[in-house]
Amino acid sequence: MTLENLISRIQPLDAAAMTAARARQDLLTKPAGSLGRLEALSVQLAGITGAVRPKIAHKVVIVMAGDHGVVAEGVSAYPQAVTPQMVLNFLQGGAAINVLSRHVGARVVIADLGVAAEMGGQPGLVERKIAPGTANIAVGPAMTRAQAELSILTGVEIVAAEIAQGLDVLATGDMGIGNTTPSAAIAAAVTGRPALEICGRGTGVDDAGLARKRSAVERALVVNRVDPTDGLDLLGKLGGFEIGGLAGAILGAAAARKAVVIDGFISTAAAIVAATLAPQVKDYLIAAHCSQELGHRLMMDWLGLTPLLDLQMRLGEGTGAALAMSLVEASCKVLDEMATFGEAGVSGKEVE
Amino acid sequence: MTLENLISRIQPLDAAAMTAARARQDLLTKPAGSLGRLEALSVQLAGITGAVRPKIAHKVVIVMAGDHGVVAEGVSAYPQAVTPQMVLNFLQGGAAINVLSRHVGARVVIADLGVAAEMGGQPGLVERKIAPGTANIAVGPAMTRAQAELSILTGVEIVAAEIAQGLDVLATGDMGIGNTTPSAAIAAAVTGRPALEICGRGTGVDDAGLARKRSAVERALVVNRVDPTDGLDLLGKLGGFEIGGLAGAILGAAAARKAVVIDGFISTAAAIVAATLAPQVKDYLIAAHCSQELGHRLMMDWLGLTPLLDLQMRLGEGTGAALAMSLVEASCKVLDEMATFGEAGVSGKEVE
Repeated sequence: MTLENLISRIQPLDAAAMTAARARQDLLTKPAGSLGRLEALSVQLAGITGAVRPKIAHKVVIVMAGDHGVVAEGVSAYPQAVTPQMVLNFLQGGAAINVLSRHVGARVVIADLGVAAEMGGQPGLVERKIAPGTANIAVGPAMTRAQAELSILTGVEIVAAEIAQGLDVLATGDMGIGNTTPSAAIAAAVTGRPALEICGRGTGVDDAGLARKRSAVERALVVNRVDPTDGLDLLGKLGGFEIGGLAGAILGAAAARKAVVIDGFISTAAAIVAATLAPQVKDYLIAAHCSQELGHRLMMDWLGLTPLLDLQMRLGEGTGAALAMSLVEASCKVLDEMATFGEAGVSGKEVE
Repeated sequence: MTLENLISRIQPLDAAAMTAARARQDLLTKPAGSLGRLEALSVQLAGITGAVRPKIAHKVVIVMAGDHGVVAEGVSAYPQAVTPQMVLNFLQGGAAINVLSRHVGARVVIADLGVAAEMGGQPGLVERKIAPGTANIAVGPAMTRAQAELSILTGVEIVAAEIAQGLDVLATGDMGIGNTTPSAAIAAAVTGRPALEICGRGTGVDDAGLARKRSAVERALVVNRVDPTDGLDLLGKLGGFEIGGLAGAILGAAAARKAVVIDGFISTAAAIVAATLAPQVKDYLIAAHCSQELGHRLMMDWLGLTPLLDLQMRLGEGTGAALAMSLVEASCKVLDEMATFGEAGVSGKEVE
């Protein structure tokens, strides 16, 4: 599968299914439109799947992990060793994404796309390391263009394997100490906004750390001379292996007509890479939540997405997406399971 | 149980349990505070229950139904017959609240507090009709003061029966054609804001209907001369039997140290009645969502509550509360099930 081939397979939403789903929503025993965004979500799912009453049997959270050379700039509050430690925590079921995925009934898949540590032989880990961490974007490109393409195609393969096992809706998640910095750089490159408006405190850097982070993003944009209309250039010069993998998973899911729930800051950077390569992918995206990380709202605006939740979260891992996936499922159940006015013998609106 | 006795049993939150829960949140494998409102919710639940790691085994949605004499003013888009028809729909499992309660794993209880139709012998219905509908508030009081007290104590009994069967968190729901009008009147009485800022379109009245609704609320406030500091006066003159029942369920749940998730416009009016009688009940409340109904935000501000969700919903029935109840449960699972940094062998924040 080439990237061009994959992109060409992402089709427009099914307008007929959407019209029929909209019409069914208006027959259900509630004032028309009174379930607000749940109704809109169900119609989007109809368009994505082509089914008038889409069913969500399999919910999958894919968490991709990778490390970042830019941590050398002092941009994170945590040491790089936390990346592999958290991967082990995910595999043992003790992290927030495990708890929330269990809560919503989702399967969690953990993949190593670029952790800067030997992770071999961990039961349950999808081992697809491109390289042990990126290079420092503040002084040069994160990776080669070939690695950028490989990370995307690897993400496509990872999601394809999950689709083969059953996947109706995908939630994206990330782990990688320092990865709000490349994500901010991607956001700055495509939106043209200054680092000041995009860089937040990530896992909790202090003022000096935040200043180093902004400086690193500014230098990354200067030294790398990115073409923001070229998704592989954007990813290769500013991104990360987990960001590339997530971009691939997003593209692969959309090509298979699966809805994709985008988590927070890092997942949204991956969605930006995916949408730069294939703008039509946006129709398949659902923004889970507004992260507390500073520039997230700008990134969602660039994608044309409105988040479902605003719970002041800023953890990543797919935690916001897991919660939002439950709302997507709820929306489809409403469309499928509610009685119509006719079925329930309920009177309609009076002529006024 | 007298009302005074009940009110005296609503105790402050358990500060020690909250402190311990807050301390545990900070040990879990995530940056401190990074789960935002989920963390705060879990701490509130600790305070409510007195448990450092509260468990949510039983989630219950109580939907109370009643009719309203003010429909004679032409304030609703739907005929009054829809109230009993929707009660039957609830009992048959075909309404939105049934679908969403199944989705979140909650039990649904349907109670008739004042439906203007014979509902006798419906399997599963909690039959506690105070009277077959209220009187028209635009021309006089909705009910007698004795009926107001009885509706509240009936709500207390209904929730007590559910607590006896197992209830860890309560979600409130309502059904009653015309009931945004008494709810708006209650909101106007306590906030002092004009009907223009509070009355919305309910199930979808047109401009003329909205004008009639505003006029009805304005006349209700003039003719009834309500004392907004007297909860029974507020409920009796402007309210409804389902609103009184919900106020009682809220008070009864709080007295039993159970968290209460408040749904939309009508449930919030019931919470206002409850908080007027017993201000300390506010600590037990969780605002599920911001309804699209115009004055809802003002009402939540008056209660000091910030909604969890904003999904542009305006259905009632407890639909927003059912979804939010799942977030409450998620918050408790995070607190209880996540690994600590020590347990998982994950490094903490670096000294900066």
